[in-house]
Amino acid sequence: MEHRFNDDSLSLHTDLYQINMAETYWRDGIHEKKAVFELFFRKLPFDNGFAVFAGLEKAIEYLSDFSFTESDLAYLKDELGYKSDFIDYLSGLSFTGTLHSMREGEIVFANEPIMRIEATLVEAQLIETALLNIVNFQTLIATKAARIKGIIEDETALEFGTRRAHEMDAAMWGARAALIGGFQATSNVRAGKRFNIPVSGTHAHALVQAYRDEYTAFKKYAETHTDCVFLVDTYDTVRSGIPNAIKVAKEFGDKINFIGVRLDSGDLAYLSKKARTMLDEAGFHDAKVIASSDLDEHTIMNLKAQGAKIDVWGVGTKLITAFDQPALGAVYKLVSIEENGKMNDTIKISSNPEKVTTPGRKRVYRIINQLNHHSEGDYIALEEEDVHSEDKLKMFHPVHTFISKFVTNFVAKDLHVPIFEQGKLVYDNPDIQTIQAYVQESLGLFWEEYKRISKPEEYPVDLSQKCWDNKMQFIHDVKNKIKKELYESE
Amino acid sequence: MEHRFNDDSLSLHTDLYQINMAETYWRDGIHEKKAVFELFFRKLPFDNGFAVFAGLEKAIEYLSDFSFTESDLAYLKDELGYKSDFIDYLSGLSFTGTLHSMREGEIVFANEPIMRIEATLVEAQLIETALLNIVNFQTLIATKAARIKGIIEDETALEFGTRRAHEMDAAMWGARAALIGGFQATSNVRAGKRFNIPVSGTHAHALVQAYRDEYTAFKKYAETHTDCVFLVDTYDTVRSGIPNAIKVAKEFGDKINFIGVRLDSGDLAYLSKKARTMLDEAGFHDAKVIASSDLDEHTIMNLKAQGAKIDVWGVGTKLITAFDQPALGAVYKLVSIEENGKMNDTIKISSNPEKVTTPGRKRVYRIINQLNHHSEGDYIALEEEDVHSEDKLKMFHPVHTFISKFVTNFVAKDLHVPIFEQGKLVYDNPDIQTIQAYVQESLGLFWEEYKRISKPEEYPVDLSQKCWDNKMQFIHDVKNKIKKELYESE
Repeated sequence: MEHRFNDDSLSLHTDLYQINMAETYWRDGIHEKKAVFELFFRKLPFDNGFAVFAGLEKAIEYLSDFSFTESDLAYLKDELGYKSDFIDYLSGLSFTGTLHSMREGEIVFANEPIMRIEATLVEAQLIETALLNIVNFQTLIATKAARIKGIIEDETALEFGTRRAHEMDAAMWGARAALIGGFQATSNVRAGKRFNIPVSGTHAHALVQAYRDEYTAFKKYAETHTDCVFLVDTYDTVRSGIPNAIKVAKEFGDKINFIGVRLDSGDLAYLSKKARTMLDEAGFHDAKVIASSDLDEHTIMNLKAQGAKIDVWGVGTKLITAFDQPALGAVYKLVSIEENGKMNDTIKISSNPEKVTTPGRKRVYRIINQLNHHSEGDYIALEEEDVHSEDKLKMFHPVHTFISKFVTNFVAKDLHVPIFEQGKLVYDNPDIQTIQAYVQESLGLFWEEYKRISKPEEYPVDLSQKCWDNKMQFIHDVKNKIKKELYESE
Repeated sequence: MEHRFNDDSLSLHTDLYQINMAETYWRDGIHEKKAVFELFFRKLPFDNGFAVFAGLEKAIEYLSDFSFTESDLAYLKDELGYKSDFIDYLSGLSFTGTLHSMREGEIVFANEPIMRIEATLVEAQLIETALLNIVNFQTLIATKAARIKGIIEDETALEFGTRRAHEMDAAMWGARAALIGGFQATSNVRAGKRFNIPVSGTHAHALVQAYRDEYTAFKKYAETHTDCVFLVDTYDTVRSGIPNAIKVAKEFGDKINFIGVRLDSGDLAYLSKKARTMLDEAGFHDAKVIASSDLDEHTIMNLKAQGAKIDVWGVGTKLITAFDQPALGAVYKLVSIEENGKMNDTIKISSNPEKVTTPGRKRVYRIINQLNHHSEGDYIALEEEDVHSEDKLKMFHPVHTFISKFVTNFVAKDLHVPIFEQGKLVYDNPDIQTIQAYVQESLGLFWEEYKRISKPEEYPVDLSQKCWDNKMQFIHDVKNKIKKELYESE
């Protein structure tokens, strides 16, 4: 099959309607109006108590490279029929806006602006789809990884999902997101190469099949590698696999580093205990039991409850596909736009109350109690509010407004950092080890009740009084306007 | 963040254990043994009655480009510590094997070899992970699309999922797979450019918010585009959105092509009927009602049952993430390997009976009844069997072997086509329109009972007598061997 156009850019990785809107704005001359969009999700995934934001690294790459290539422009003109004057205009575009974002690895909750984009209307619109595509997936996987790692605790967690990932980017960025969420290594070599993250793996069933004989296969592996994990379930784990692994480990002695055995099928609780006993009886007290086989946080918790003796957990499908909820629904909403030279806030109403947007350019603060060093909740305020200087902060539920408290003796941590300023990258994203450490440190701010994997308490995410009043005024105005229009048209 | 290595190749898009096994094979001198691997899945996704194979195009690209770049080799050596002699060996590798595969768009069932790879042991091993990554995802989405399109029937189906896809490759190849499964267009412009598939889209809520006023926004859109679909749910669908759409359509008359209105929230059954009535009353009988909002095959079937008046269905999240079952579990198993210059079959035993592999190099035939032009079932035979020349074919269930029938007056269609022969690409993958047509034509061979979205009948996939006897012999031999080893070691 012949392709006429090179896939040499990500700038058309967007929904067609973005291009059509861009054309309307440009032809109408409003394309350079300053617009503010915020990116947020409305509901935490997996009924988890928190999410872990990931996707900033890729978003930075995408925005840095944003511009239409010759082949992009040729496609828009020749195949989709956009006119030359508009194509000429698009040819000069790049991202010249300002991006504030949470740090990668930030603990984030529903309805909090993760990213705030201030750019010309046309630029902000064209980048929407790609930013959502990036943040939705990577945040989903980092969150799933953190859930699983929360159950695995101090044992080792390995990401093994490439073959079940949703195509190649998902395997790559998913492996990285798994590390952000707390995993120690991935099996994907390309991810290791690209992101400088640890890779892990030994051999598959095919090795045993290729040598036909398990003992020979293990021996050949030991002859050619120092670090040895033997996969013991090709024929019969207890009667053949583990005995052969022990036999080879004894024969090779100090010539190899016998890390342990890997179980990949059967009842992992029973088999791991059996393996532990057999390894101990053979004198291999330090040899590890590594287990994989369709694991997720629930199965792992169950296996632990049954006393499974597993030291290293390999997690594939259920993590890399976020199997029990494979989509995060982050959205990107216009909250303010320039009119006659000044910024005016804007709202989207919906018959679903939770889909009504909160107008205005906002910041998110984490309100940390100075006495117990735990977070009291997050506080969303309008950009111009000076939260730091308040002595006593009123925090109230944004729906059930009677639920409220006053907080004193707090530090308000601004969760946004500047990433791009007027098109210039002003942020150096930390390496993955630093991001990992930031996640763990941040999680320390939260009480345990928010971190249970089942039925966690709802962490407070409150609006400032000003933010709330502004929203209510907008709802009121829109309703009146619709009434007025209906009245006039009758 | 600095990256030391360029992401300039997909050849390390594999699990680390593949590289480790490659090293063992190479150091042991068995790396060039001829090996046969088959790729298949064990269970149909979504409890569907069939699957639609997709992924061949990408697999061809991947295999054609397979070779380690300088940066791949530098990473393996400098970061992972592989020795220079092995690195030198890897530097000369490319795919020199033979690939037989089903056509893209083929209707496929559990346990059928979709692809059969005959290559040196080392090459076949190194490409496993990427092939599974590609085929698992694309087949999953093509199948989901076919399920949904089966319910949408003759109305238009649009793929709108990019923002919820699992990163960018999933959006791109998922859009293409949706087309293979029967969708008419995607919203992803880059997918349109790359794959030459139709793209679709008009405007979002942001356009209305940018102009604040719905009427103005629609008017501006109409001034700048001929084809107009107005999104009517930014403020109030019935009281504001549809009346404004009609008002603008009347004002512009023949100056625009008023395609219709799009509903994106609220009760689509009620709103679509209301929209239809309002459009008809305004004289716009040809205007379409386009609906989206978390749709899947079940919701669409329900909406249709309630008499919803929807002409075009936009499907996002539930399709592009295969929401109800986001992973297909295809595997890649060694079925035969060279020993002393001749090919010997091989098996993998498991305590899960359905995980026991079927040894030997196999073909899949679709047994088409010449009288009714419907398929009697698929028939898996060893490569050397001459199925075409049989007058009377015995087909029996591969587990419940007493379920059997004899088929006469049939044509046996070989589902495999040669793609690579000794490393040379010998196949020209058809364009997407041809593949789409092939899917629909192929579906015509199956009785309706296999195509229900809920509780379909199980389509027969049978083994030839020789294939079955061969498998039973292997199981018997392995069990004896394990017994013998245990006896000897006691």
